[in-house]
Amino acid sequence: MAEIQNSEAPKILTMNQGIGDQSYATNSISQSKYQSGSRPLLRSAIAALCAADLPSAIAVADLGCSSGPNALFAISEIVGVIRGCCGGEAPELTVFLNDLAENDFNSVFRGLSNKKNGGSSAMDECFVAGVPGSFYGRLFASNSLHFVHSSSSLHWLSQVPPELSEKGKGIRNKGKIFISKTSPSEVIEAYYGQFKKDFSCFLKSRSKEVVCGGRMVLTFRGRRQPDPCPDETCLLWDYLGLAFQALVHEGLIEEEELESYNTPYYEPYVEDVRREIEEEGSFKIENLEIIALAWDGVNRDGESYERSKTTQQMAKAIQAVNECMIRAHFGGDIIEPLFKRFEEIMEADTREVEHVSLVVSLLRK
Amino acid sequence: MAEIQNSEAPKILTMNQGIGDQSYATNSISQSKYQSGSRPLLRSAIAALCAADLPSAIAVADLGCSSGPNALFAISEIVGVIRGCCGGEAPELTVFLNDLAENDFNSVFRGLSNKKNGGSSAMDECFVAGVPGSFYGRLFASNSLHFVHSSSSLHWLSQVPPELSEKGKGIRNKGKIFISKTSPSEVIEAYYGQFKKDFSCFLKSRSKEVVCGGRMVLTFRGRRQPDPCPDETCLLWDYLGLAFQALVHEGLIEEEELESYNTPYYEPYVEDVRREIEEEGSFKIENLEIIALAWDGVNRDGESYERSKTTQQMAKAIQAVNECMIRAHFGGDIIEPLFKRFEEIMEADTREVEHVSLVVSLLRK
Repeated sequence: MAEIQNSEAPKILTMNQGIGDQSYATNSISQSKYQSGSRPLLRSAIAALCAADLPSAIAVADLGCSSGPNALFAISEIVGVIRGCCGGEAPELTVFLNDLAENDFNSVFRGLSNKKNGGSSAMDECFVAGVPGSFYGRLFASNSLHFVHSSSSLHWLSQVPPELSEKGKGIRNKGKIFISKTSPSEVIEAYYGQFKKDFSCFLKSRSKEVVCGGRMVLTFRGRRQPDPCPDETCLLWDYLGLAFQALVHEGLIEEEELESYNTPYYEPYVEDVRREIEEEGSFKIENLEIIALAWDGVNRDGESYERSKTTQQMAKAIQAVNECMIRAHFGGDIIEPLFKRFEEIMEADTREVEHVSLVVSLLRK
Repeated sequence: MAEIQNSEAPKILTMNQGIGDQSYATNSISQSKYQSGSRPLLRSAIAALCAADLPSAIAVADLGCSSGPNALFAISEIVGVIRGCCGGEAPELTVFLNDLAENDFNSVFRGLSNKKNGGSSAMDECFVAGVPGSFYGRLFASNSLHFVHSSSSLHWLSQVPPELSEKGKGIRNKGKIFISKTSPSEVIEAYYGQFKKDFSCFLKSRSKEVVCGGRMVLTFRGRRQPDPCPDETCLLWDYLGLAFQALVHEGLIEEEELESYNTPYYEPYVEDVRREIEEEGSFKIENLEIIALAWDGVNRDGESYERSKTTQQMAKAIQAVNECMIRAHFGGDIIEPLFKRFEEIMEADTREVEHVSLVVSLLRK
């Protein structure tokens, strides 16, 4: 049994709270599109689960639920599909919503309570619990889960690779905040090593918690090519790195401050994901798909395409997931100028990339 | 299965948040003294649980955990005692912390995460989940709990008795906000009826959730005498009622506003508690004790006695648990003058009463 809160976990990895213009709730459109994209696979995994002999009570967990509208969207859908598959004889359902202890669980719980009091909802007849802690360690009792879902979370590492963050003697990733084409190979190796360590911890922990025959559907950002620095993976981080560099030039940030900042994020290559799962050995890959969202996938459907509108949305989306970490390292004063520069740099460029996610459906052997 | 959030539950029944001078965290000394007073009974109940054949994983719930230091105090103690009783072969432990969805779970989770990272703690090796919702309905899957604890919570009713709150035609409880010696008998009957309904709902729900051989230890305010309006039960509420009346005289509150305000609180007679448990029939009473705290029990131990110091503490303690409800009904402007009057009225008087709680230890048959 591990500690509930991995002491290495980045405490500041929290999506922007509330429902305002800068909040994660308002700026998580692409995350909800990935959820839609993974729906067929999710549905077939649940159908397979329900086709097996289910006990009279089952437990479902959503790992990295966050606190926006997506927090309850996925789990409501899962509960609805389970009820649909099981007909009148649906088992008692317990639903666990997990995220780091710094997540805004209060708003999740209040949203749930409003939803339940506001009329019939798939969640009405569920028992719901919030589970604070890092999913890179144990969170649940042995053999207590039947279905695990995680969307747009597993690309966040438990920490910046320690090789990069050791003060003074860390590997230098000059002017960058993530892997880029100009990063030394040690940077790329350090990130890959952290991914391997984290992802295998994740699988090991879940292998203890998920019953035999239980299932997981995981959706997270990843690469469809072995090249560790394709534009698809790095372009947005490069733009943000340039915005940081502009602030260094303007004297708003010290160069050393930027040198010691890197993002605990990784987009693994699909075949590396496959290999990690096979090496850990507890789960069988039932399905592994790639979802590519268009460059302007951050926009709401039906909006006409303009680069400026897209970059505006993109800046907000990137701010919603990065602001807490940036604020903790640099202070709050740079947030506004940083994301203004970020948007300008994006708008001045013409490149477009797709946003790629992997969806993997697993069966506990 | 009931809804997680009883739609009748008073949404505003939330202890004052944070850790400031007016917070529940700072002003729940008497609650923590009740916890100490119930400790021997708690320990013997856990010892008896552990003496039985325990499964390899057990689940413990604290119902009405609130969000001050007491929120983790009780559960840490319970976990420590279980580990002590079981020796090296302690089962996997899952701990559920329950309160209404409006409770500040964020601070509970952050406190837990600090505690865990701050060195060894009884909670280190537990799986922890927060469960939002009213304990007057179902909260957990059938046969999923082995031990249930609740302290200083069950004296809060699920709602003000509806007979009192029906607009226009409600029973009048003139100038009062709770049962008092001048309340008409219908008021007393309405409160008693609400207690019976709520307490039997509580027992029925828990009877489904607690496994046979599982145990509950419940501590809540109650009466040691059949008289429904002894000073022990009513004095503080009478003082607060007088403070409200003073504000009516000063024109700060409309008389009708006060007429329509009553507190969802009840101190049941110990023999009524016994009868409800016996009538519901699922639990055997292993022990039922009465704890009486001295008048100045709200003070920290070792503080010298002065009426003014005691009344100051008392005013803060009563404010911490009532402010949210009062604010929701009257608005926030009256809080300061109300509790100033309350303190003055208490200080001008000379009466002293003991604060009485019941501790009941139950075995699921």
